Amino acid sequence: MRILTVAGSLRKESYNRKLLALAESFLAQTGVEIDHVDLRDFPMPVYDGDLESEKGLPETVWKLQARIAACQGVLICSPEYNGGIPGTLKNVIDWTSRGASQPWAGKVVVLMGATTGMWGTQRMMPQLRQTLGILSAIVIPQQVNVRDARKVWDEKGQLLDDKLAERVEKVIREFVRVTRALKLEAE
Amino acid sequence: MRILTVAGSLRKESYNRKLLALAESFLAQTGVEIDHVDLRDFPMPVYDGDLESEKGLPETVWKLQARIAACQGVLICSPEYNGGIPGTLKNVIDWTSRGASQPWAGKVVVLMGATTGMWGTQRMMPQLRQTLGILSAIVIPQQVNVRDARKVWDEKGQLLDDKLAERVEKVIREFVRVTRALKLEAE
Amino acid sequence: MRILTVAGSLRKESYNRKLLALAESFLAQTGVEIDHVDLRDFPMPVYDGDLESEKGLPETVWKLQARIAACQGVLICSPEYNGGIPGTLKNVIDWTSRGASQPWAGKVVVLMGATTGMWGTQRMMPQLRQTLGILSAIVIPQQVNVRDARKVWDEKGQLLDDKLAERVEKVIREFVRVTRALKLEAE
Amino acid sequence: MRILTVAGSLRKESYNRKLLALAESFLAQTGVEIDHVDLRDFPMPVYDGDLESEKGLPETVWKLQARIAACQGVLICSPEYNGGIPGTLKNVIDWTSRGASQPWAGKVVVLMGATTGMWGTQRMMPQLRQTLGILSAIVIPQQVNVRDARKVWDEKGQLLDDKLAERVEKVIREFVRVTRALKLEAE
Repeated sequence: MRILTVAGSLRKESYNRKLLALAESFLAQTGVEIDHVDLRDFPMPVYDGDLESEKGLPETVWKLQARIAACQGVLICSPEYNGGIPGTLKNVIDWTSRGASQPWAGKVVVLMGATTGMWGTQRMMPQLRQTLGILSAIVIPQQVNVRDARKVWDEKGQLLDDKLAERVEKVIREFVRVTRALKLEAE
Repeated sequence: MRILTVAGSLRKESYNRKLLALAESFLAQTGVEIDHVDLRDFPMPVYDGDLESEKGLPETVWKLQARIAACQGVLICSPEYNGGIPGTLKNVIDWTSRGASQPWAGKVVVLMGATTGMWGTQRMMPQLRQTLGILSAIVIPQQVNVRDARKVWDEKGQLLDDKLAERVEKVIREFVRVTRALKLEAE
Repeated sequence: MRILTVAGSLRKESYNRKLLALAESFLAQTGVEIDHVDLRDFPMPVYDGDLESEKGLPETVWKLQARIAACQGVLICSPEYNGGIPGTLKNVIDWTSRGASQPWAGKVVVLMGATTGMWGTQRMMPQLRQTLGILSAIVIPQQVNVRDARKVWDEKGQLLDDKLAERVEKVIREFVRVTRALKLEAE
Repeated sequence: MRILTVAGSLRKESYNRKLLALAESFLAQTGVEIDHVDLRDFPMPVYDGDLESEKGLPETVWKLQARIAACQGVLICSPEYNGGIPGTLKNVIDWTSRGASQPWAGKVVVLMGATTGMWGTQRMMPQLRQTLGILSAIVIPQQVNVRDARKVWDEKGQLLDDKLAERVEKVIREFVRVTRALKLEAE
């Protein structure tokens, strides 16, 4: 069983990359195959319908579509910008939803998010759920919301909050359980 | 496998009861056991924390909790009031979320909704998804939104729109598939 | 200029009543007339379209409608139940939206909310904004979200958090400014 | 009084550009100054925190910020992509929210949206309201939602739906009324 993992931020020192690494460590323990995607490796222009009509999908788009299509589940760790999905991440979803077949349908998805502020991406997550749901992905109800991220990791990137690790592990286990159950049923 | 079915409106001639009946007809074809709940049979006061502290949960609440607990999946057909979940339905969810154990966790849920207006409960559904998700229910991404309901059923309650029946059947099949897969996994 | 103030919870010791009292103290300083409404004084059945058809609006509903109609602005302090608007409060809004003319149109509204949990009603507020907006109320963008309320007031109800008082005062001033500007324009 | 007008789509033949032109025609009748912005003239990379740290804001960003800052109100006509704000538009908002001072605070905003599908951007608008509200813009409750846009304009771009024109005019008048009232108060 293959799980695609991706952070919604391009920034190298993003707390969401740290959260993703933590989640991946628990994911690895479950025996699934992890396909880590870095959005820096898939640069895309902002979506423009005329551009698509003239030139078709950029190469980075259909390459990312193929990576998504090859997985049963997707783990997304994303920041929140201005109370919503980062335009950068939404642009990736918009592009990958285009073309002959969109690869999100039927994927099981789990959402995590970290902010340095107080609300831990709680305002963004319903939006990401809505978009992925419209693309027919099954987003599990459990999620991880990290607020005040500067107190959660020290300057060297070491995790200071044991409860967060417990929470992440629990959510990952549920995510793998649901993904596996739906995969078995499909076979 | 048992599925609880419920309309979110108390009104006897509600279009959501018609939509529910349509969905139940397809549900019956899949061989599941249907537990039809009429909220008129479970009258509840509006939620009041002081009332709960003094008298505990009303009898109708724990009776409904037991009915939910005994099912693997739930089908809800609900109208939209003022762009949101009807207070009546939200009140039922609020009450049934109380007490020693809330019964919604782990249930697979499918949402349908009908309005006589243009937007077919599209503004309400994200809210119902959010609340059920927080209660750890898995709401499948497929949903049915019926707008302009007066043109969908004639005065005798006969369905005029074949495409709606097809859509409902398709969504019901997906709902049963996911519920069954997660039930099997749990066994 | 008259402002209606109301808590969305019926519970007597609700933190939202404390937050409302704090906000009212700053509101009083601006020279507006305050019309404090306690929802315990306006008991309503859960909304039922058949009940409305048979008996019309309950007396408590049109009395509350008249109180809303007589104000230029409304301050709501509400808890969050299961990530959404309390059914109790939504039921009040649903009832007061009925009848010959709904009184919410054109009112300026400000939202505050307190929870003992981490997210300070952030998941509920977009829903309350949506419903009030559909009723043509102008909800100002500034809001107050209090989390971890047990640490904000001591056991005697004394406020422990000075920054909260500053924030509430600032939001109240903006609320009064907008309400006054739109009132002047209407005259 | 100056109003900035902008379509959320880059596509030249976008129905949202047609809707914007219709709204601008009514806006012109109110005597306000219109500052029409075409996002094609403000190309921006996708937002990347590292890029911002290294090079600061792109020139197109601060030029657009200045245009927004010089207006009292903003009219946005936007499509919906995958049930949410187009990544392209969200990216513009994310960029313009950065730097020493973000220009959205205090602006009065009105939202319109057109789709060729059934739901007329109803799923996207709550998200755009949320983001603009967090940036302290006052989004008026009235909005225009156009569904089935292929039947609303003919192939030559001629409007076929008189009721839409009436609705747009009414919303524009309310938008100008609120913007003017808040401008007068601020002076």
